[in-house]
Amino acid sequence: MNQKFVYQFQEGSKEMKELLGGKGANLAEMARLGIPVPPGFTISTKVCQYYYEHNRTYPESLMGEIKEHLAQMEKDAGKAFGNPHNPLLVSVRSGAAVSMPGMMDTILNLGFNDDVFEYQLKNGNNPTFICDSYRRFLQMFGNVVYGIPHHLFEKVLSKVKEQKNVTLDNELDQDGLLQVIEGYKKIYIDEKGKGFPQDPLVQLMDAVNAVVGSWNNDRANIYRRLNRIEGLLGTAVNIQAMVFGNKNMQSGTGVCFTRDPSTGDKGLYGEFLLNAQGEDVVAGIRTPKHIRELDAILPHCYQELLRILETLEGHYRDMQDIEFTIEDAKLYLLQTRNGKRTGAASVKIAVDLVNEGVLSKEEAIMRVEPNSLNQLLHPRFDPSHQEKAVVIAKGLPASPGAAFGKVVFTADEAQNVANGGEKVILVREETSPEDIQGMDSAQGILTARGGMTSHAAVVARGMGKCCVSGAHGISVNEEEKYFKTQLGEIIHEGDIISLDGTKGEVYKGELPTLPPNLSGEFGFFMEWADQIRRLDIRTNADTPKDAQQAVQFGAQGIGLCRTEHMFFEGERIQAVREMILADDVQGREKALAKILPMQREDFIGIFQAMQGRPVTVRLLDPPLHEFLPHDPDDIQELATEMGVSLAVLKEKIDSLKEFNPMLGHRGCRLGITYPEITKMQTRAIVEAACKLAQEKQEVHPEIMVPLVGTDKEFISQKEVIDETAAIVMKEQGITIDYLVGTMIEIPRAALIAADIAKHAAFFSFGTNDLTQMTFGYSRDDAGKFLGAYIDQKILSVDPFQSIDQKGVGRLVSWASKEGKEANPTLKLGICGEHGGDPESIVFCDSLGLQYVSCSPFRVPVARLAAAQASIINRKA
Amino acid sequence: MNQKFVYQFQEGSKEMKELLGGKGANLAEMARLGIPVPPGFTISTKVCQYYYEHNRTYPESLMGEIKEHLAQMEKDAGKAFGNPHNPLLVSVRSGAAVSMPGMMDTILNLGFNDDVFEYQLKNGNNPTFICDSYRRFLQMFGNVVYGIPHHLFEKVLSKVKEQKNVTLDNELDQDGLLQVIEGYKKIYIDEKGKGFPQDPLVQLMDAVNAVVGSWNNDRANIYRRLNRIEGLLGTAVNIQAMVFGNKNMQSGTGVCFTRDPSTGDKGLYGEFLLNAQGEDVVAGIRTPKHIRELDAILPHCYQELLRILETLEGHYRDMQDIEFTIEDAKLYLLQTRNGKRTGAASVKIAVDLVNEGVLSKEEAIMRVEPNSLNQLLHPRFDPSHQEKAVVIAKGLPASPGAAFGKVVFTADEAQNVANGGEKVILVREETSPEDIQGMDSAQGILTARGGMTSHAAVVARGMGKCCVSGAHGISVNEEEKYFKTQLGEIIHEGDIISLDGTKGEVYKGELPTLPPNLSGEFGFFMEWADQIRRLDIRTNADTPKDAQQAVQFGAQGIGLCRTEHMFFEGERIQAVREMILADDVQGREKALAKILPMQREDFIGIFQAMQGRPVTVRLLDPPLHEFLPHDPDDIQELATEMGVSLAVLKEKIDSLKEFNPMLGHRGCRLGITYPEITKMQTRAIVEAACKLAQEKQEVHPEIMVPLVGTDKEFISQKEVIDETAAIVMKEQGITIDYLVGTMIEIPRAALIAADIAKHAAFFSFGTNDLTQMTFGYSRDDAGKFLGAYIDQKILSVDPFQSIDQKGVGRLVSWASKEGKEANPTLKLGICGEHGGDPESIVFCDSLGLQYVSCSPFRVPVARLAAAQASIINRKA
Repeated sequence: MNQKFVYQFQEGSKEMKELLGGKGANLAEMARLGIPVPPGFTISTKVCQYYYEHNRTYPESLMGEIKEHLAQMEKDAGKAFGNPHNPLLVSVRSGAAVSMPGMMDTILNLGFNDDVFEYQLKNGNNPTFICDSYRRFLQMFGNVVYGIPHHLFEKVLSKVKEQKNVTLDNELDQDGLLQVIEGYKKIYIDEKGKGFPQDPLVQLMDAVNAVVGSWNNDRANIYRRLNRIEGLLGTAVNIQAMVFGNKNMQSGTGVCFTRDPSTGDKGLYGEFLLNAQGEDVVAGIRTPKHIRELDAILPHCYQELLRILETLEGHYRDMQDIEFTIEDAKLYLLQTRNGKRTGAASVKIAVDLVNEGVLSKEEAIMRVEPNSLNQLLHPRFDPSHQEKAVVIAKGLPASPGAAFGKVVFTADEAQNVANGGEKVILVREETSPEDIQGMDSAQGILTARGGMTSHAAVVARGMGKCCVSGAHGISVNEEEKYFKTQLGEIIHEGDIISLDGTKGEVYKGELPTLPPNLSGEFGFFMEWADQIRRLDIRTNADTPKDAQQAVQFGAQGIGLCRTEHMFFEGERIQAVREMILADDVQGREKALAKILPMQREDFIGIFQAMQGRPVTVRLLDPPLHEFLPHDPDDIQELATEMGVSLAVLKEKIDSLKEFNPMLGHRGCRLGITYPEITKMQTRAIVEAACKLAQEKQEVHPEIMVPLVGTDKEFISQKEVIDETAAIVMKEQGITIDYLVGTMIEIPRAALIAADIAKHAAFFSFGTNDLTQMTFGYSRDDAGKFLGAYIDQKILSVDPFQSIDQKGVGRLVSWASKEGKEANPTLKLGICGEHGGDPESIVFCDSLGLQYVSCSPFRVPVARLAAAQASIINRKA
Repeated sequence: MNQKFVYQFQEGSKEMKELLGGKGANLAEMARLGIPVPPGFTISTKVCQYYYEHNRTYPESLMGEIKEHLAQMEKDAGKAFGNPHNPLLVSVRSGAAVSMPGMMDTILNLGFNDDVFEYQLKNGNNPTFICDSYRRFLQMFGNVVYGIPHHLFEKVLSKVKEQKNVTLDNELDQDGLLQVIEGYKKIYIDEKGKGFPQDPLVQLMDAVNAVVGSWNNDRANIYRRLNRIEGLLGTAVNIQAMVFGNKNMQSGTGVCFTRDPSTGDKGLYGEFLLNAQGEDVVAGIRTPKHIRELDAILPHCYQELLRILETLEGHYRDMQDIEFTIEDAKLYLLQTRNGKRTGAASVKIAVDLVNEGVLSKEEAIMRVEPNSLNQLLHPRFDPSHQEKAVVIAKGLPASPGAAFGKVVFTADEAQNVANGGEKVILVREETSPEDIQGMDSAQGILTARGGMTSHAAVVARGMGKCCVSGAHGISVNEEEKYFKTQLGEIIHEGDIISLDGTKGEVYKGELPTLPPNLSGEFGFFMEWADQIRRLDIRTNADTPKDAQQAVQFGAQGIGLCRTEHMFFEGERIQAVREMILADDVQGREKALAKILPMQREDFIGIFQAMQGRPVTVRLLDPPLHEFLPHDPDDIQELATEMGVSLAVLKEKIDSLKEFNPMLGHRGCRLGITYPEITKMQTRAIVEAACKLAQEKQEVHPEIMVPLVGTDKEFISQKEVIDETAAIVMKEQGITIDYLVGTMIEIPRAALIAADIAKHAAFFSFGTNDLTQMTFGYSRDDAGKFLGAYIDQKILSVDPFQSIDQKGVGRLVSWASKEGKEANPTLKLGICGEHGGDPESIVFCDSLGLQYVSCSPFRVPVARLAAAQASIINRKA
């Protein structure tokens, strides 16, 4: 196998991401463009793949290749690895084809050892810098490669800083740094029983090993799972000559965007620190300066940076996110990539790039991740209240939006409280990759330290969470679970605060919110999407309020109106229970007669909100026991209310219990055993429609029979519906158009779709239940193994999040095809939660469905995803 | 529509069953053959079909046709309808294409009215006969046509019999009969407010109406459901001139078989009553004489009967069941049909007919209903015990077999007690069609009255239940729930008795049983089946005992050995619970180590019993909570045993609870989250196999991974199995052949069968779960609606009994085809309960599966069904 595993930067290009990783490919591209990049090479992702496929060993030829490329790099840099007189120091960085911020481990200043250090300390012209660099190397190498806990190093550092009475790391003098170095070296002996490796080549291979190993650490796996990243070979490893931002005050390091990643506004946006090394900016320990301030300090560096950024944005046709280092007033680019951005920025940049003539509308549509629109749709605080609200803290506007919730101080607690159904705000000194799941559970994040590019800020923007970072005024006591504001107010765990991530402000208590603004760039953008998409977008809504919200978001109809939610409200539940507990048809009919007028009013409200758009109403679906109390006290209370004995009621409740309610007496099985329920619901729908029709309002009810598995079930229920509708229309003296169709949510229904289609006006794929039954997974129980399944890659994605195209999708595909063949006028749609999932929408579009239906807040996401689906499927 | 609805007997033939019903077609055939049949005509099944399709109305042309055919019949009989001087009296009988004994209503002597009666009474030569015929007509017509309760007529009759001090109906003198007639007429006035119709044509149409209406009564529907009769147009109505067996002592009526329906022995078998009308024999009120006794009483009738029976058996090429009436020493045939018979008789007759040169072997195979073999397989009483057992009652050997159980006196109670899992014997004065479901629940039936052709006897034989009928010695008090033997012993409800249906004997207590004798005709017959069939027959067996039984019945391997049953036994459950309650892998492994040797012994036993035949072992399938106690006391006990606190144990049990266990953490989901379980089970299987291999015994384990839904699940479990097997074989120093395959029981597994087949050695279709998930029916809960579904014909058959070919079958068919395409060496079988269902076996054969697997006692049924499947599918 004479496969090539290592590539000098000059050998690569931005098209080689899969092989070189994003970072490596872009370093290569910059080198090709003549942008100043320190020399280096990339160990390709094939090595990582080989490593995991060969029981954690490396290709035989690798070492030789590395040495060869190292030699070239020494030549390019004019330095030599391990040579005390002119040492080549290198960085070792991970870089997969897809960016995973904060997830992989990095080592700087590799190549240091005692010889190099002592020689440079004696003969170099910047002993503090030498000491600081060595100390950083010892700390990073020890932590990343040998797994020595971070806090052991921090303890040594803090102790010396205390002795020296300084606050910041860079305030330590040489003596202090030497003490730190000695302390660090002792940690190696204490923890590992030996000193760190003096041979730079051993260091290098250990570091490569650590990077490759980190591909499979928990944090990386969780990140990939959360972000549905799959199909990658592994990470590449970039070895690059060090340049030093921490050399002196003519040196520094920074990160910078070509447009504002929060708003999308054009213009430089970034931060830098003088006399600092890479991690200092993103770690958030020191608060950096705005990039524009560089102009005053190192103007020619700033001007060169401007030129380079313009070149890069033009070259990549997208907003760039770069890292740079200045060493002795010379600028080096260390990274460029398409910058992560908020949903709002994403839309604004896409629209601006179209207006600037850079992108076509279709390209712009493809540039915005549909899920990122979520962020634009979340409410803002009501300004009239917000104006009067007392700001208890101010920080950076790290991720836009407004949120309130109970204060918690740990990621675990955030998950716990959120799982209990409460909204939480995670408050931390600063966040770390370990906090990701807690951040995901929170409504918003508040940190006391860190800038706009700190971990908290980057991750929150990616998640579309509201975040205020670097709120220096507050002091957080995570142990005793409170934080203190600058004015000395104490906020305890469980207290409610509100965050404005767009302004960077923190308020006490809960502030009322307003719906988001959907005009401007967003309006233009969505118009383009609507022009391009083929699929209609409907919504799942059970109330007039939800229906109105969805219409505002662009819904073209209701794809699923669940009537059972209406059964739970207020006094209705009493009548519903009466119906369930009745012993015969007469008793049930009497109780149903009480529910009828209430349900009719529901439908009037929903039909009005939809203004003539089609409304698919699903008949009663859940098993009846769901409407009965289970707590002994509640049962006693109900018995008293109903005037029956406790024993009788208990017996009735017991008789309705089921072993597997998912597969029990529900859906149309209720309608067939108790046709009076179907009659009442049909009457409520048709009476409501007739009333509006009499008032000359357009109305298009589509009555949906749930859980059909045989053609005869559907035929039998359709008969009841048609008979009832005919009676009502005769009573009301008016005719309305209505359709009767069914949900395809039982595997068998999909298998005999042709038989059902002959009688049905529409199919709506209920992919939630269809997924449950096709996989044999109860959604309520699958948590016990689904996590392990995804960790072990038995499943690449939770099939409840994105439709399983191979299995469930095959059923949907067959049923669509065979249904249409049997009945060419059959309408096809999907109303499971997959209807709001972009990947699933692409699939639905490819099957030729007429519409997808999703929750109101996902309607814009679905509109964009449908436009992307059109583009993708037209290409395919 | 000039459709023909009515057919004179001469117009029909035995091929016209669908149109004329079985009775009508055979009457026509006999008329064609020149056999003496009273003249008549048949109203075709199309009329019944029309009636139910046209809102219970009749075709316009019907009345005209009936009158026309009535005129012809009057001519043939030389009598006139409603003419007092020479009255034509007729019977009106139902008759569908498939015989449904006791299910449809019959009216005799129709055409009587007051004019006819008075004239005949005065001028006829047999006034008692005239009175008795009139009374019978009034009773039957009132009950059947007007729905007047039977007991009202019985009360009048009993009262007069008491006054007259006689026991039997035919002992009443003319005066008594006249009193009865007056009493009966009064019943019409009391119950209906008017006398019965005097116009014979009105009587006729009312009677036709009653017969057609009875097609849809509950009894008929239940019978059709129990016997899976479907697709019939309806019942025909046969109108036939009466002949009178109750005219005098030169008259009589009887039923007769050409061979013994219990044993199949060749030779006349039947009963008759002199001076009696049709229903008297089957009603079981008078105990009839053996048919051979007729030779002494009316020898020329007997000889003619012999000749006719020989003609009929030859003509139909099957054992015939006939009804005859003798009027004034002249023989008439009223019915012939292929006789119902026990399983043993069925086999014996089929084999005899082959030996007699009447049938080919393949024809003989098609003649025996596979399910009827069940009766041959049930145990007999151990003779050594039976000899010494005290007979407490003796009756007729109405349906062979041996059974014991708790005595119950009502059909409802039989169902209740049987549903509780106990065996019951239903004891009745006599049974009626209302008792059918109770009879189905019972192990055996004992009646005090009725002959070999009584309701109890006929139905019990059909069901393959042991039955002793006409045990006159006992007196049954159904009200106070006991019966008294001839010796005065009282047997109460709940006492246990034993029945020998082959000998007609009743014993007190439970008698030990012996396995059935499977040699003789049965042996020949099954050999023919084995020569013809293509499918292999395996068995579902979890114990060496079951395995041995199945081998005796001809099983060619085990298709499903469930290992979880082994987990419940004795002290094992303790170790199993320890495993479940362990907090980590080490704890589980420790507990599994205790189970290993026990499980290994199980497999050794099973492998030995199967003598080298393949054994498919399914790895652990049920959710773990099934092994834990749920009762508070048991939980406390377990906590004490385990040495953990009650709270901890409860929490653990709660944490394992599932909302839908069917769709929860079970099957290979356990093996993937706890691979140590798969390892232990593989080790037990392979160690057992190695041990036998070392002893030079042949052994072919097939390890089956349950509940696979994705290819990766299978791949992952196969890896664990192969690794473990390799280790064990290395330890044991011997190599065994084993296969690893999977159960296809999740719809998705069928949908992605090709992917799984690439890695699997076999597929076994688990159609129980596949049916549950494809339909979305929980077997434990579907009872709440499945009955209604079958009653309302939403489903034609319970899909758990016979495979749903359209839906579930489509999945099985695809998975078979696509699996074979992906892996041509893939073995295919089925191990759901459908594996023992004849219809499903025909389907499996048509798909080209290699084997079906069923419970041991169904193996012979499956062997025969597989032979029939070969014949049917070869034809198709």
